Amino acid sequence: MKAAVLYGNKDVRVEERAVKAVGENDVKVKVSWTGICGTDLHEYEIGPLLVQVDQPHPLTGEMAPLVLGHEFSGVVEEVGSNVQKFKKGDRVVVNPVVTSGKHSPEIDRYYEFYSAGLHTDGSFAEYFVANEGNVVPIPDDLSLEKAALVEPLSVAAQAVKDAEVKEGDTVAVFGVGPIGLFAIVAAKAAGAKNILAFDLSDERLSKAKEVGATEVLNTKDNDAVAFIKEKYPTGVDASLEVAGVKATFDAAISSTKPKGNVVVVAIHAKDFEFNPITLMTSGVKLSSSLGYEHETFKKSIDILRDKNTNVEPILTKKINLQDVVEEGFHALSNDLSQAKILIEIGGEK
Amino acid sequence: MKAAVLYGNKDVRVEERAVKAVGENDVKVKVSWTGICGTDLHEYEIGPLLVQVDQPHPLTGEMAPLVLGHEFSGVVEEVGSNVQKFKKGDRVVVNPVVTSGKHSPEIDRYYEFYSAGLHTDGSFAEYFVANEGNVVPIPDDLSLEKAALVEPLSVAAQAVKDAEVKEGDTVAVFGVGPIGLFAIVAAKAAGAKNILAFDLSDERLSKAKEVGATEVLNTKDNDAVAFIKEKYPTGVDASLEVAGVKATFDAAISSTKPKGNVVVVAIHAKDFEFNPITLMTSGVKLSSSLGYEHETFKKSIDILRDKNTNVEPILTKKINLQDVVEEGFHALSNDLSQAKILIEIGGEK
Repeated sequence: MKAAVLYGNKDVRVEERAVKAVGENDVKVKVSWTGICGTDLHEYEIGPLLVQVDQPHPLTGEMAPLVLGHEFSGVVEEVGSNVQKFKKGDRVVVNPVVTSGKHSPEIDRYYEFYSAGLHTDGSFAEYFVANEGNVVPIPDDLSLEKAALVEPLSVAAQAVKDAEVKEGDTVAVFGVGPIGLFAIVAAKAAGAKNILAFDLSDERLSKAKEVGATEVLNTKDNDAVAFIKEKYPTGVDASLEVAGVKATFDAAISSTKPKGNVVVVAIHAKDFEFNPITLMTSGVKLSSSLGYEHETFKKSIDILRDKNTNVEPILTKKINLQDVVEEGFHALSNDLSQAKILIEIGGEK
Repeated sequence: MKAAVLYGNKDVRVEERAVKAVGENDVKVKVSWTGICGTDLHEYEIGPLLVQVDQPHPLTGEMAPLVLGHEFSGVVEEVGSNVQKFKKGDRVVVNPVVTSGKHSPEIDRYYEFYSAGLHTDGSFAEYFVANEGNVVPIPDDLSLEKAALVEPLSVAAQAVKDAEVKEGDTVAVFGVGPIGLFAIVAAKAAGAKNILAFDLSDERLSKAKEVGATEVLNTKDNDAVAFIKEKYPTGVDASLEVAGVKATFDAAISSTKPKGNVVVVAIHAKDFEFNPITLMTSGVKLSSSLGYEHETFKKSIDILRDKNTNVEPILTKKINLQDVVEEGFHALSNDLSQAKILIEIGGEK
């Protein structure tokens, strides 16, 4: 099959790759659509960071060269001899993350996990072979194209769950790249009444409004905390920090009400100076979201089906697999108007 | 009346001071015992930090010279004309913190507050005049001497509440100065089954065992995280960071289970390098406890009455008011075996 394979820094090759053998509990999925994640971009541009290059991954025994990609939808092509739940032709998404199952589902991923497209071959390929436990059917009213967004939406939906967002809440989202935009979608689905979005790009903020932000502010020349405190003097109920810099981290803490949650979704590239006294005076609870529970992954299908959900503005481009570097990675790096780029592989609807 | 008054850095004078007028909703308390808090010591040694010196405090209109002290018990001497709940001779403790009452009791203190002994005159004096709403009666079976510990115990009990410690939990306490020792007492009262205490002083760790720690480790030559992970591979249920340095902050995060609470109780004198990715990989919830709810203050009376509570090892010295500098502040600075020093004023039992 054709696949986009990461060999090393700025070295992704679209080439022939063998399809994995289908075990008795496995489902072979013909990939329809697969999204490019910020993580894929990082692996290509500044990595490999998560993809093992020097020695095999302890859980999968695999290492680069590996097929990238972990956000995808597809159609079942073949099932293993023990698989009862799926049959050829079923429309599905696949949770790319495998955990040990030794702990409760809420925390299992914190102990050990591996992910398709990082620690074993991923979805930038014509086929993907998954354990049936990771495969989730999608209903007829959800297109395969939109279903490729289930995975990144799950990351945001988990952060919204970790932030304990409930009906009627006021939520601040700092940074509205793709995951920030999905965070708005997930917060809206959780019933948030007021969703405030902050970013340095008017173009992104315009998307933020389209997908559900009720108020937006460009923080290039404006102070987010002052803006929030004027409208919500006691602070917002929850904040999601999706920008990954000290300024937004500090702003999220300063603008959230006591006992409210500040959830860091971004990965911070740099350490910064910190004093827990900011948590003492603000009274917030600080955490950082990692991946998602399988329940959250399944629930994201319902969010995408909801008639109040609008993810169209997040889908900015569709490309072919052979163009993944030029039209995918380079576009994401150089064009701020890009959010989620989908690779059409099988291209089923 | 005689009072210990803070004038400035290393300038506390025991001198005559007027008693405040007793308003119609006030209770005049004859102070029996008052404890020296780490905060008092800091105001004296490296402060004034919280005591205003240049301009009056915005809420109280007062500034140095001010009478220190906010941990105390006493006997009602006189009540204002509207006061029904108290009469002369009642044995009481006083919550030194005044909040606006504009928010729910759980979060009111985060918006505005002032405290006796820092923003208005305190309890290092023969009398203290309090609003009746801050006065709490104590039962006959609690001595006035022990009742002077209600306030510092409340700080620890609030941290244990914030950490959501419940029956059967395993709790790690990093740093067992006076508040760390009270944290052990409060964790035990909350039903913690295993209480692990870490410190650099064997003398303090010995006290920690006496008040309820089930396991102790001197971290001078031992690694707390390795110790915890060997015995509790999935991590402890909650951690209390009462030492105020980066090493214990990092250790608390690394040794607590996903979704467990790390509560910083200490004030960190120095900023340090931090990356929220430590919260992402550990999955902990981080917060820092500030003061206490009035309910927690009242509940601390019950903790002190409990026959399973042992606070004797924390009470290391009793002194007279005129010796507060030499026998109080200097002893706390120079003698690590000191924990809680009480000043006998009225001295009632």
